[in-house]
Order: sequence, then structure tokens, then C-alpha cells
Amino acid sequence: MNPALQELKKTLRTNQISTDPLQCQNYGRDWTRSYIPNAQAVLFPESIEQVQEIVLWARKNRSPLVPSGGRTGLSGGAVAANGEFVVSLERLRQIFELNEIEQTVRCEAGVITENLQHFVSASGFYFPVDFASRGSSQIGGNIATNAGGTKVIRYGLMRDWILSLKVVTGAGEILQLNRDLVKNNSGYDLRHLFIGSEGTLGIICETTLRITQPPKDLTVLLIQIPALEHSIEILTRFRKQVSLTAFEFFTDKALDYVLQQHSDFTRPFSKTSSVYLLIEFENQSPKDLESAMEAFDTCLAAKILTDGAVSQNSQQFQTFWKYREDISESLSPLKPYKNDISVRISKIPEFVSAAEKMLSKQFPKNEIIWFGHIGDGNLHINVLRHESQSDEDFSSDCKSISQSLFELLQKLGGSISAEHGIGLTKKPYLHFSRSPEEIRLMRAIKKVLDPDGILNPGKIFDITPGGT
Amino acid sequence: MNPALQELKKTLRTNQISTDPLQCQNYGRDWTRSYIPNAQAVLFPESIEQVQEIVLWARKNRSPLVPSGGRTGLSGGAVAANGEFVVSLERLRQIFELNEIEQTVRCEAGVITENLQHFVSASGFYFPVDFASRGSSQIGGNIATNAGGTKVIRYGLMRDWILSLKVVTGAGEILQLNRDLVKNNSGYDLRHLFIGSEGTLGIICETTLRITQPPKDLTVLLIQIPALEHSIEILTRFRKQVSLTAFEFFTDKALDYVLQQHSDFTRPFSKTSSVYLLIEFENQSPKDLESAMEAFDTCLAAKILTDGAVSQNSQQFQTFWKYREDISESLSPLKPYKNDISVRISKIPEFVSAAEKMLSKQFPKNEIIWFGHIGDGNLHINVLRHESQSDEDFSSDCKSISQSLFELLQKLGGSISAEHGIGLTKKPYLHFSRSPEEIRLMRAIKKVLDPDGILNPGKIFDITPGGT
Repeated sequence: MNPALQELKKTLRTNQISTDPLQCQNYGRDWTRSYIPNAQAVLFPESIEQVQEIVLWARKNRSPLVPSGGRTGLSGGAVAANGEFVVSLERLRQIFELNEIEQTVRCEAGVITENLQHFVSASGFYFPVDFASRGSSQIGGNIATNAGGTKVIRYGLMRDWILSLKVVTGAGEILQLNRDLVKNNSGYDLRHLFIGSEGTLGIICETTLRITQPPKDLTVLLIQIPALEHSIEILTRFRKQVSLTAFEFFTDKALDYVLQQHSDFTRPFSKTSSVYLLIEFENQSPKDLESAMEAFDTCLAAKILTDGAVSQNSQQFQTFWKYREDISESLSPLKPYKNDISVRISKIPEFVSAAEKMLSKQFPKNEIIWFGHIGDGNLHINVLRHESQSDEDFSSDCKSISQSLFELLQKLGGSISAEHGIGLTKKPYLHFSRSPEEIRLMRAIKKVLDPDGILNPGKIFDITPGGT
Repeated sequence: MNPALQELKKTLRTNQISTDPLQCQNYGRDWTRSYIPNAQAVLFPESIEQVQEIVLWARKNRSPLVPSGGRTGLSGGAVAANGEFVVSLERLRQIFELNEIEQTVRCEAGVITENLQHFVSASGFYFPVDFASRGSSQIGGNIATNAGGTKVIRYGLMRDWILSLKVVTGAGEILQLNRDLVKNNSGYDLRHLFIGSEGTLGIICETTLRITQPPKDLTVLLIQIPALEHSIEILTRFRKQVSLTAFEFFTDKALDYVLQQHSDFTRPFSKTSSVYLLIEFENQSPKDLESAMEAFDTCLAAKILTDGAVSQNSQQFQTFWKYREDISESLSPLKPYKNDISVRISKIPEFVSAAEKMLSKQFPKNEIIWFGHIGDGNLHINVLRHESQSDEDFSSDCKSISQSLFELLQKLGGSISAEHGIGLTKKPYLHFSRSPEEIRLMRAIKKVLDPDGILNPGKIFDITPGGT
């Protein structure tokens, strides 16, 4: 055993340190699968004080640490590929209390998203940040990556629900930020620096989250539209009429793959269409449904949609959602090129059209599949390897695809990462979204909070330009 | 003229530099009135590039700058009392565009809050951050102080509405932060550092703000309650039944002063009561009013309220609001001690009761007047000078009052500044709300963004411990 690790045994019990190769492999990777995990050990602290001890130990020994949640990320942010020590937060999994007066819930970083959602629901409240990986992702990881998901149009991002944070900085200091206060204008709000910092500034150990009343009587309207460009006008019309909780889109190609995977699913409409919209709204009274139908009718009259169906029961509601939520899983066996990007909402059609044109010219044989969140300007693009293409060729083409997409995004003022973060995969492209001044400032702030550069080194940016 | 100023004439026209003593006095103070203004000059840039030139000039000459909005602050954040150069943003007052698809409005920092609200309303949208100083306060100042106001319970703080920022840092760099994107997880969100930083990190020049659909059919319910402690249960009951847009409180003493000022106002109820609640909610259908009345009836049955009245028309709606909003103005001629603090919502009764007990023991002759935002845990306390007390004695007692209140707040985990910021007035007390580690980090971050310490020096904290 590494002699430095030996020293850590003063702080941690034997079962809190694992050098088992299988565990090191498992905890050293996230859902990207494109890096070879190479963690030196996995550490399992059981309190914030132990996290602090680990950081102080790491500073002393210049040991790089990778903070680790549910590792469901898709940018390599939680990957340990260079002999780092993984700090798993999974044993910090206590939900302390739900406060009905404050409308808050306090919990540790390792709590699974879905467990928190259920805990909150059991008291008649609602935690709205939700996404497909809810069964594995952890609250601390959601904070470190400022998770988004399908309800952003109504409820915003993870950032919007974080009332307080307890973190251990890279300097080994415990910060207790914001003390559960709604209003607290007393100097810089350091809380927001840690949110979305992908474990590079501090290790998030505990949080108080806001919760809310659950939405009532959700209904899904699935509609067919002849072209993506109409989605913007449809969004604008519906938003005026009903209280939207989701406004998603996917293409017929995406639907085809879902239907191939689910033999029990039927095609939603008799005719096919190039684009589908999934519109979820609160349907509390006949008036709400009427308003939605009014919006539908004006869109039909304007010929910007061709057909539609309202979910009639909870089973159909689930099925409509599955058309959208199962796309990623259905494509997964094909190991597609994936990217998660954003533009201003009004720029979506222009971006997709330009990207389609560009990619079909550069890579005419590769199938392109789009889906995403219209209401947030967030697009998920998948490009499939074609039959005659070797893995190596495809991998090399993927780099060109990224480069081309990011150049286009830069031109249209978009972001190279809407919700998945930068991590390792997008690090080489950070300059497409952030200016040299911003990157320099990020480096300087990193230096303030993590003076020895021990926290998740090499993620988002390299500490010194040109090297890790 | 100061020779350094002479140099600035290369960048600014004559009418953009004022050394007129009256202007220097006027622009050198805010609404606190307790500092003697002593600005060296007032600068009026007309573009972000000119702001950048001013900052670069100030760095070169080590000239301290005080960024200046509507100067409606109550913590001395915009005061220039030490020969600083005031940088007024008032000529950056353009509203560029309202984007209906994005639901955003882009404008410069010097736009008056009310002008923006009207501009947005004219297009059928709503900008919800609102407070009594709406006619003078400017958008840039609202951002720099993370303004709150009366609608926070429903719409949150200024922070929650800022999609993008254009700022000039203390280093003289122009940053364009977030590019109007809803989702943009590409490294640290520097935007949030500037929000609430009181002009100490950068000068905010332009922003894109989110806007929303206006609330519908607002109604006010004014109720009498026998004791403040019941307000929490009443809040909890109403919140379950209706969509609240405000939940305010004030005491009978506060109401007395408003009635003294407004001879045309009548006492709202025949019997007096110690505490009043103003509950504003969306009343779109008979069902909403029914729900509110149900909540009212259960509270009445539980004897936690004694009487109430629903606004019957827009005039009564205005009057009910005036009972609450005119308190500050009514007290103003008496030059009261004022403080703006916050605790967790559930701690309000405990805090007010402990503070009343403590102050009535220490200062038995001084009248104490409370009002504030129950739904945000935000209390405004006013203490009046008693007749036999000299201005000097009162001023000295006020320091003791602050000290006592802040000690109590520290014990209960509250904040010494809910919405007014730290500025100069609360600088000596910052340690009651923020830990030594946090203050050290704030200093280090200031150093990164304002390496020469030229931006609003001496506000929030001194740059080096023990000195400015």
C-alpha cells in the first residue's frame, strides 16, 4: 500500500479505504466509458470532518483527489484516469429533515436523487429537478454539475434550488454557505461558485434544498409538426395559454429507435412526421384543457402542426414520456457520438438547420438524431456510425464533428455544454464558449480555493495554460 | 483640475466630467445621509468602452472609483466620502430589445427600475422585482445589490432574473457573461460573483433580464392577528391554498404613523390589534377566493387571527398596500434607527420576541417599530429617538442596538443584511454573518478581479485586515 495511504489509516477505518482493482475501476469512471480508469484507491468518508481530513492529507502529500457522486456524468468529470484518489460521497447519505415552514429539505451529498424525491413527496411536497439518471445520480453530483433535466422550463436548474451548502475547499477549510436564508446580502455569494464547478473548487458534503408544492394534474399533449422551425411559434402560443412544465422535441428517426426497442409500443399517429413535440402542462380544470386546445387549434389553422393527442390516463402519459425519455437508452447499443449543447431558444431552428447541412455534407453516410428541450434552448445531438466505418475512423470523425459544431455554436453565441459540464471531454473546446479573460479568471479563482491544485485536476481546464 | 483628470479628457467630453461641488455632493451620497460626501469628481461614461477607459485610467493613477446607480441604498454602498471619483451609469440608459420568444429584455445599467417595468408591461410581460424606490433605483444598482423587495416570496431576488451580464472588472477587462443562455454549464458561473458585490469587483454596464407573464387578478387580504407568532402558521395554511405573491407584516405602531401622515386613510378595522398581515394572491376564479376564505376560516377557528378584509376594488387594493409601503416614508421625518435583517422564516417570532425583550430592557424609552416580509424571513426594524434623548446619545445608543441585534442574529443563524447589503454601515459587523474563512476568501477574490483595489474601496470589507 502507498505509504501516504498508510498515514490516512489514522483517520479512516480499513473499510473506508479500498485499493481493490475492481472497485478502483468501477469508481474511476463515469458514464462516458471512453477513458481507462486508473484510480489509486477509493476513499469512503462518513462525515464532513473526515472529508476535511482527507483534503488536508492530500494537500500534505500532493495527492490528487476526484470527488465522486453517482458518476452518471457524460463529460468525464468524475473520471480518475491518472492515479488519483477517488473520494466517494456515497456514505454521506443521510436525509436530515424536511421543514414544512421553510419549505426546505436538508441532506448529505451522497443521497440518491430519486430517494430525495420520494422522501419529499411522502410529505406532500415536490423536488422538481429531475432527469433520466435519477436512480443513480447523487445530490452532491447534481450540485457540482448544476444538473438540468426535463423540468427546467418551469422550475429552473439545480442552482435555483440550493439554499445552503456545506463544502470543504481545496485548502481544507469547511465553509457553511448561506445558512438556509432566503435573503442574505452580506458580501459575495460564494455558494454559486461551487455550483457547477465539477468538484474542482471544493467537495460538497451537505446542502439545504428548497422544495415546493407538487404540480397538479399533469397532462401530456403529443403533437406532430412538419418542421422544427415551427416549434418556436408553438412554444410561444402555448406558453401564453397554459402553465407549461415541459416542452420537449424529438425527430421521427429518434422515435424509430425507441419503437424498435419496445415492441409493445405503437406509433402514436397514423402518418409519420419529421418532428414531434411533447408538451406537458398543468391541467387542473376544464378551462386549462380548453386553453391548451385553443392554442392547438390556432397552430393547426396556421398549418404549423399536423396532428396531436392528449394523454387520456396515466398509462398513456407514461408512454408519451417514454417516447422521449427512452431515446438515449435505445441508441446506446449503437455507441453514438453524443453532444449536449445550447443556443438561445430562437436560434434553435437556425442552428439545427445549419448543423444538418454541414454534417450531411461532411459525413453524408452518418445518421443524425436530434432531441432535446426546446424551452431551454438545449439540444442533444446523436450521430451514428455507418456500417462501412471502422471504430477508429468514426472516432476520428467525431472529433471533426465536435470541432464543426462548436465553431457553429461560437458563431451563434451558444454553449458547448448545456447541462453535462466540461469535465475532460470538452476541455479542449472550452474556448469556444468562454473568453480568454474568463478562463484566466477561472484559473485564478481555482488557485484561491484550491491552492495546491489537488481537487479534480485536469477537469474543465488545465491549471496552467498548456499543461495540467 | 486634478492633473490625472486632465488626462481623462482624452476619453471623455467636457460634459462627461463634473467637479461642480453640488454635483459632487449629490452624487457622493446615497439614502443613508450619515456620511459627509466628498467626491473628487463625477464621471458620466456613455458606453461600456468608456467605462473600460475610466477603469484603465484609474488603475494607472491609483484613483478610487465609486460605481453609482440611483443611490437609493441604505448601507452607504454608493457613498464617496474619501475623495473618490464617482462613475455614474445614468447615461447608459438604453433599453435595447424585448424578446418575446426568449422572454427577455436587454438594457443598460442606468435604466430606472420603473421605466423597465413599464417598458416590459407595454408588451404584455412582467418584470417582478419591485420595491418602494422603483422610481429612482437603477437596474445596475439593483444587480450590484441583489435587490429584493415585496415579491420575493413568489418571484425571488434580482439574482434570479439575470440571464446575462456585461461588466468591466477592476482589472479593466470587459466580460460578457452567459450570453443569454438558459443552460450553460461551461465552467464557473462568474455572473453570480458580480451580483450583490456592491460594485467592488466590477462595474455592471449591461444585462439581459428574464421577464415573465404578469400575475392575474391580484387581490389583497388584510388581516389582524393577536400576536406575530401566529403569522408562521397562517403563512403555512395560506400557501397550501392559494398562489401567494406577497406575505407582509406590520405592527399597529407602524400603522399609526402611516395614518398620522395620511389624514384621508381610515383605520382598516374597528378594533385595534398588535399585528397586521397583508396577503396578496392570484384570484383568477371564484375557486381561488373560496380557497383563500377556507384558509381564513380555519385560522379564525384556530383563533390565530381576529378579523380580515378582502380588497374589493383597485382603490382599496392600493390603500391596503399603502398601509404597508408608506411606513418607511412616514417614519422618515423622525430619523429613526433602521435595520434590515433576516432569519429563517420559522425563527421570526423567536427573534422578534427576544429582540423586543432585550431592547425594552436596554432602552426602555425608545419606541420600536417592526415590519417586513414574513415569507422571506426579512425584518425591518425601526427604533425611534425618545424626546429626552440628544442626537449624540441616540447615535451612540444605535451602535449598541446594532451590536445587540447582530449578536442575537449570530446566535439564531440570521443575516445582518437581508437586502440592503453591507456597504459602509455594516462593514464593522460583517463577521456576525460570515466566517473568517469566508471573509478571507472574499478578499482573495477581490484581489483577483480588482488587483489594484480601485473599485469601491472600503465597502463590504477592508482590503487588508485592519485597514482600507
